[in-house]
Amino acid sequence: MAEAPLYFSAADRQRLEPHLPPPQTSSRTSSHSQATDLSPPSCSALPFVSLTFATSLDSALSLGPGIRTTLSGPQSKAMTHYLRTRHDAICVGVGTAIADDPGLNSRLDTDEGSSRNTVSVTAHQPRPIIIDPRLRWDFTAQSKVMRLAREGKGLAPYIVTLQKEPPVQKKEILEGVGGKFISLNAAHDDEEKIGGTRRLDWRAILSAVRQEGLRSIMIEGGAEVINSLLGEEANLVDSVIVTIAPVWLGRGGVTVSPPRTHNVNRPVARLSDTMWMPLGDDVVLCGRIAR
Amino acid sequence: MAEAPLYFSAADRQRLEPHLPPPQTSSRTSSHSQATDLSPPSCSALPFVSLTFATSLDSALSLGPGIRTTLSGPQSKAMTHYLRTRHDAICVGVGTAIADDPGLNSRLDTDEGSSRNTVSVTAHQPRPIIIDPRLRWDFTAQSKVMRLAREGKGLAPYIVTLQKEPPVQKKEILEGVGGKFISLNAAHDDEEKIGGTRRLDWRAILSAVRQEGLRSIMIEGGAEVINSLLGEEANLVDSVIVTIAPVWLGRGGVTVSPPRTHNVNRPVARLSDTMWMPLGDDVVLCGRIAR
Ligand SMILES: NC(=O)c1ccc[n+]([C@@H]2O[C@H](COP(=O)([O-])OP(=O)(O)OC[C@H]3O[C@@H](n4cnc5c(N)ncnc54)[C@H](OP(=O)(O)O)[C@@H]3O)[C@@H](O)[C@H]2O)c1
Ligand SMILES: NC(=O)c1ccc[n+]([C@@H]2O[C@H](COP(=O)([O-])OP(=O)(O)OC[C@H]3O[C@@H](n4cnc5c(N)ncnc54)[C@H](OP(=O)(O)O)[C@@H]3O)[C@@H](O)[C@H]2O)c1
Repeated sequence: MAEAPLYFSAADRQRLEPHLPPPQTSSRTSSHSQATDLSPPSCSALPFVSLTFATSLDSALSLGPGIRTTLSGPQSKAMTHYLRTRHDAICVGVGTAIADDPGLNSRLDTDEGSSRNTVSVTAHQPRPIIIDPRLRWDFTAQSKVMRLAREGKGLAPYIVTLQKEPPVQKKEILEGVGGKFISLNAAHDDEEKIGGTRRLDWRAILSAVRQEGLRSIMIEGGAEVINSLLGEEANLVDSVIVTIAPVWLGRGGVTVSPPRTHNVNRPVARLSDTMWMPLGDDVVLCGRIAR
Repeated sequence: MAEAPLYFSAADRQRLEPHLPPPQTSSRTSSHSQATDLSPPSCSALPFVSLTFATSLDSALSLGPGIRTTLSGPQSKAMTHYLRTRHDAICVGVGTAIADDPGLNSRLDTDEGSSRNTVSVTAHQPRPIIIDPRLRWDFTAQSKVMRLAREGKGLAPYIVTLQKEPPVQKKEILEGVGGKFISLNAAHDDEEKIGGTRRLDWRAILSAVRQEGLRSIMIEGGAEVINSLLGEEANLVDSVIVTIAPVWLGRGGVTVSPPRTHNVNRPVARLSDTMWMPLGDDVVLCGRIAR
């Protein structure tokens, strides 16, 4: 099914600019040309991290696990696709990959030939990064992100995992479209831990992303990923861009609300330098996590 | 402790106007002069109902039951106090009365002598209405709303209850400041129901409010009251005004998220005719519940 083109005006782009990675890390440098960057980053270097997602008024990302839920209207959807052209990488957790079979490309259309932010569908695509520690995602050659990569409409995904030896069949599909597995160690040397879930350390994930020449990443979800990046890992986040739709999904949704790990009598995170930008029926909130 | 005066600009008032009760039902007719209204409303007449509250980005009203939480900044707080001058009544559930000892008056200051919306602290105060079916609220003559009534800084509260014979001592305190109990029957003829909680019917509550000559009511909370008025009782609501502060309180808060009583795969409520109005660090969302 052909999808409608998405336009995002120059005026709206201008308003977002202070909340985006500096231009040299994104639209002016395609992730293809970055392959020719001859000075590799140091191991501690991290990309510019934007946390971007859409919620209902009751902070839900979806009606429930596995229920695809359209929250944002056409204008804020176009904004999201513009953001994807302004980042070198786009990241989701395996929960989202399984629930949504997402495309993780940008379908933004060139709408202003003269604007410096002009992009066409093929001008700049973000590199999809999927966090899948135990390789739960049962993708095939027909999964949307693989299909889009084959068709040249998006880049092939990198899957970040704890598995040292991913199954050969999965490797073939992934590498067949130009993607790859990135195997990392578990956080906190708990690799041998018995019971409990082994975790990836976000700093290690981001460092690995930067080692791939990707200088900016937008992290789109889902709930578990966002809650940890608004909570304990908030110091890794440079910019937060939330679209809020004027709807209450009601109890039972997949919700953003980080655990109060430090002090139960204090808010977990507050945004500073905020900008509220009404866009169609929705509002887009940009800010930085106050330290 | 003297509290700072609150100003709300004429321009901002203008923007809110389409979302407020028609002027004749509020600021131009004080609830005092309504006592001289000689044509009593019919039993089925209802007031204009505004649902107004402040939440965090994760839809919390407070950090937890009984934890007073300042969410909105000075500008949106002034807006709330302006709204209070534009309604004949202000309503909260007993949970809020117990948790917050609220004042339920308006502290808005006259800031524009020439504006037709000009109000002074004493010009128009809303009538506090507290929904307390089982008379759980253990108020005294020192409770804030009683104190403000005695000092002429607010009106005395009406307490809506299922109790036919409120305790004499409570009656004395309440009537001493000019307030009263309004006893209603339980909803759905379940008055004799054994076990389970007897409920008041919102239509009956609102009808009783209208019978008191009050032509508009803003319902401020708490969570249980709001969830039922966004859910099953949404047809009673004329206008919704939500202030959202750019903060995540985190898991464990008292949250707005109505139960999905009808269809678990559909949003519970959507707003139409929306307006997003950035105000200081917060945003104010106005709209109508789409039918
Ligand atoms: N509205 C939006 O903007 C938006 C955007 C994206 C997604 N969504 C919605 O979000 C929902 C999915 O959210 P979700 O919370 O279920 O899934 P998720 O956050 O996408 O993925 C969670 C999984 O990712 C892995 N993971 C995340 N962080 C990790 C870490 N530090 N170390 C190791 N593993 C890590 C874990 O896998 P293991 O369990 O295998 O360890 C975890 O279970 C879907 O309903 C989707 O539609 C909405
Ligand atoms: N941020 C804001 O704008 C804002 C505004 C107001 C309140 N709050 C917060 O909200 C919290 C309180 O919320 P809450 O949910 O605990 O309490 P609530 O909604 O204020 O009161 C709930 C109680 O009211 C009674 N009630 C409500 N509807 C009824 C009906 N139809 N029939 C009979 N009884 C009814 C019930 O009393 P019984 O249990 O006795 O039956 C119920 O337990 C506090 O933390 C407060 O700070 C925040």
